[in-house]
Formats: sequence, structure tokens, C-alpha cells
Amino acid sequence: VAHVKTRIRDIGEFGLIGRIEALSRRAFRSRGLSSVALGIGDDAALLRLRAGEQVVVTTDALVEGVHFDFAQETARVAGRRALVANLSDLAAMGARPLGFVVAMAAPAELELSRALGIARGLLDVAVQFDCPLVGGNLARASEVSVAITALGAVRAGRALLRSSARAGDRVFVTGTLGGAALERARGRVVRAAIPRVAAGLALARMRGVGACIDLSDGLAADLMHVCRASGVRARLDVGAVPTPPRFAAACERVRREPLALALAGGEDYELLCTARGRAANAASLSQRLGVRVTEIGRIEAGRAAVLGLPAALGAGGFRHY
Amino acid sequence: VAHVKTRIRDIGEFGLIGRIEALSRRAFRSRGLSSVALGIGDDAALLRLRAGEQVVVTTDALVEGVHFDFAQETARVAGRRALVANLSDLAAMGARPLGFVVAMAAPAELELSRALGIARGLLDVAVQFDCPLVGGNLARASEVSVAITALGAVRAGRALLRSSARAGDRVFVTGTLGGAALERARGRVVRAAIPRVAAGLALARMRGVGACIDLSDGLAADLMHVCRASGVRARLDVGAVPTPPRFAAACERVRREPLALALAGGEDYELLCTARGRAANAASLSQRLGVRVTEIGRIEAGRAAVLGLPAALGAGGFRHY
Repeated sequence: VAHVKTRIRDIGEFGLIGRIEALSRRAFRSRGLSSVALGIGDDAALLRLRAGEQVVVTTDALVEGVHFDFAQETARVAGRRALVANLSDLAAMGARPLGFVVAMAAPAELELSRALGIARGLLDVAVQFDCPLVGGNLARASEVSVAITALGAVRAGRALLRSSARAGDRVFVTGTLGGAALERARGRVVRAAIPRVAAGLALARMRGVGACIDLSDGLAADLMHVCRASGVRARLDVGAVPTPPRFAAACERVRREPLALALAGGEDYELLCTARGRAANAASLSQRLGVRVTEIGRIEAGRAAVLGLPAALGAGGFRHY
Repeated sequence: VAHVKTRIRDIGEFGLIGRIEALSRRAFRSRGLSSVALGIGDDAALLRLRAGEQVVVTTDALVEGVHFDFAQETARVAGRRALVANLSDLAAMGARPLGFVVAMAAPAELELSRALGIARGLLDVAVQFDCPLVGGNLARASEVSVAITALGAVRAGRALLRSSARAGDRVFVTGTLGGAALERARGRVVRAAIPRVAAGLALARMRGVGACIDLSDGLAADLMHVCRASGVRARLDVGAVPTPPRFAAACERVRREPLALALAGGEDYELLCTARGRAANAASLSQRLGVRVTEIGRIEAGRAAVLGLPAALGAGGFRHY
């Protein structure tokens, strides 16, 4: 008996939308989400803020063949990665997630299991971080793409900005760096990282925290963004940059320079922040943020630059063109 | 001297982003937009609401070869249409626009003039409706697509919903219907319609207004959405449906049935609403909304259905697959 795969064209646009809505309802069934006044199904969704909050909005997209490849990874992992990238941006602002919308494009011939797999991956992360799917759009295209806009809320004046670093601040990162780049170097699929939502919320509540950014392009490139936005320079202690267990040995096996992966790898989705005064302490930050925090450098007055990088390391970061 | 066209790959991702940011700054230079607390350039944008408001969020995408074609229309017109579709959704909720983000995908070989043309088209509409570009994403893809998420604000409890029609309501539409479908039937580019933002805001402030929806899929299909959401049926007076001047004669020249274009054409981006009591008056609605309003039917108790349609007319509406 031949096994015939169901494709999007077999159930049509509204069929697929209905299936994704059903997955979303099931995923959020037992949760009363106070942020959603009106979800999927009208011309737009309605989200509630608390008094004194501002809206945080960020958008990011994954394109088949550029950011993911069905031959290498499951659709579900691709879906997870898509939402993680957006939630990481919310985390970097110190925002609590409110909800997200997704504009998905796909060929009519795409296997339904892949389209639903992406949706399941999105919802895996959505449920974990209380960030419901509140709307979407589905369009025909020659390759699959998933453009997500995530919304969050932050108390007015408390958002974490790239531009708040000051000379004298210490530089900290959560977690470890280079793991995603190592997986790519091994030819493996990068499992979705964990967006540091709780850590971002904790940072936004603390005094003495300066700038914050999430590490999506790679430490060197992202720290340079902070320097440019803040009009300062950073002196990095590359020896202090935290890497995963047994990282050096694993890098050696694939003949990659550990420092290059840790400094320019990207997609780690850890947070980098600067802090001053009593906040500038890795041990107390680790406790407050609920994740290992490591001091990796300091901020100095001067033209925007990252000092202390190995000479061989380019500015790095993922480029689309 | 050969004229060499500049392509995206010649200036790169950050070059193009910088050019679009510069266009946006220039477009909004003289306007102090109170909604934007933080615009392009950080991990996310920050938008302000007024006390007692909720966030309205909608997303829509245009894909090259499906929704637009560079051979038939300029990039700028495509850009305008992309934002109009989203602002029309905000209008249908009775929301005031706060800002929008755009996830654009394009081949590296795309002529820069086209990429910037799309951005100019978006900004044409953005400036007209005080809806600034507050963020975006740029990705490589084999065809051009523009996925927009627009944000608006509405007083809590005052949003216009598809689900608020009641038996006894009268049905009204703004403007005229069928014009966009006629242009397509003539093989012409559909110039961007005008999203009825001011009319939606006026409706949200009025008593006696029921359901509201924007006419993007076509009157028959969109009115059916209202019936389903509200659990009612609609009786349409097709003879009352307003069409553009000299519509019948123009339809005859391209051998199309005027009623079919007016009822199932789509992309008119007019508003359909229901109203009751003193609000249910076309003349006073026209005055309050600042646009011609026509009564075209009534809402009755019963299973979701649109009665009064010509038998030959299918449910219609644009389908992606």
C-alpha cells in the first residue's frame, strides 16, 4: 500500500489555519492568560497591559535554505528556534512576553506534517514562556519562511537598553558561549537555545544594571553594538569567557579554534549586560538571575570598540548577504 | 557607458537596513510621535499606550508572484498595498495606529531600487496615518516577501469585533465596492486603497454600533465571517451595494458581471459594520465617519448565512492554496 503524504494543498489555507489554531488551543488549554483579551479569529488580536507598562515589539524571520534546512533538522526544531530568537529579544529588553503573531509562507506542495511541525515547535516554546499565538498569516511561496513578531510588556522607564553602558561598568554574560557554533561546526542541528526571559525580568528590576543585549550575532559583534549605542568602549577578558564543559577538546576534534567559536559563533541567545556598584558582582547576579553569570570585561570611556579580541578574529556575526 | 544597477548584495544587509532607516527618519522628521518611546536600533522597540488602552496587533504578508508582480507594478505601489492591508485591519478594530514592523525577504540580486521602492511605499502610507516603522528584519530568500505586523491601541472594551452583530441590526458599508476587482479584470495594477482608519475610530466611539470587519476577501465572504462570529444570518440587498461611478459600463467592456466583482472582488478595504437604534442611519453615519456610508442589508436570527446573494455567486474570496 502506497503511503501518500498529505500536503498543504490537500487541506487548503483555511484547513491549515484551523489545524494550527486547534494545536494552539490545546497547547494553552489549561492556562488562563491574562494578557489576551481577544485571540485568533478577528481582524486583529487584543492584548492587555498592566498600568504603567509599555509595549515591547520585535520581529525576526527564518527562511528555509538560509536559516534552516528540512534535510538537516526537523520542522519542530526549526519552529522552536524561530520563536526563541524573538523571545530572546524580549528578554534582552527585560520584558515579560504577551503573545506573538506568525506570518508563515510555504509552497502548496509542502508536506502538512512539516507545516504542523513548525507550528508545534513554535507552540513548545510559546507554552514554556506563557507567550500565546494570537494571530497569523499564511501565504503561498516557493520556500518556507516563518516571520514572527513577538510582543512584550515592560514598566515604563525600566526597559533594558543597548545604550545604557557607562565607563566603569563591568560586563557580564549568562550561561556559556560557543555551544551553538560548535554544534554547527560538527554538522549537527543546533537545538533551540533557551531564551533568558526570567533573567531579563530580574535585570529590569535591579538597580545598578546598565546596558543589555542578547547574544544572537556572537559576543564580539553584539558587544560592539552596545559600545556603539552607548558611546563607550569595552575591554574584554577573553580568558574569562565561559564555554560549555569539555569545549576545548570538542573544538579540537573538529579543528576549530575554541575562542573563535565562543567570541563570534552566535545563536547562543545568552544575555550580556553591564552593571555597576553592588550589582556588579557575578555571584549575586547569578543568584538574582537564576542562571550562572560570569564577569568577562569592563566598560571604558573612548570611541566605540571592543578591545582584547584576538587579532585573527574578524568582527564576525551572521551576515545575510 | 553601461548602466550597472546596484543590487542588495552590493551594499549588504546592514547597508540596506541603514538606507531604510534613513528613509524612515526623513519621512517622519517633522512629526513628534508620542507613541514611540524607542524606535529602530535596539533589540526591540518600545511603544506607549494611553491609560486604559489595549494593544491591537495584526499581521499580513505580500509575496512576489502571488500578491504582486514587479513586471506589473512598481515596488512602491506594492509597498503601499502591504501596509494598507494591515492598517485596514486596525481600522476594522477601531484602533489608532501605533507603529509597525516589517520582515522583508529578498534575493541578494534584487535591484536596490526595488527594495527601497517597497520601503518608500510602506513609508508613504505610514506617514499618512501616523504609523511609524519601529523595527524590522531582513533575510535572504529566492523571492521577495514583505510580512508586516501593525500595532494599534484601543480603549479597553471599545474594540470593534466581528462577533457583535445582533438580530435586528442594519448592515452598512463605507465607500464603494468592486473597484479593485475591476482594475484587476482590466489587467491593471490595483492602486493602494485607503484604509478607513478615521472611520474605524469614529465607529469605536459611537453607541449602537455592532460588528465591524474590513472588506479584504470580498463582501460576501467577509459578511459571512461576521455571521459566523456573531451566530446570526445576514440578508443582503444586493441592489443597494454601492459601486464606483460608471461601474456597470466598465464591467461590460471587460465582460465581467458587475455584481460578481462588487460582491466577491476583494481588496476594497472598505469597512462593513452593523448598527442599531439611532446609529442605524446611513446619512448620520456618513457624517460621523467622514465618508459615504450605504445601508446594504440587515441581520436576522438564524444559522450563519448570507441570504440574497445571486445563485451563481460562489462563496468567493481570495484563496492562497
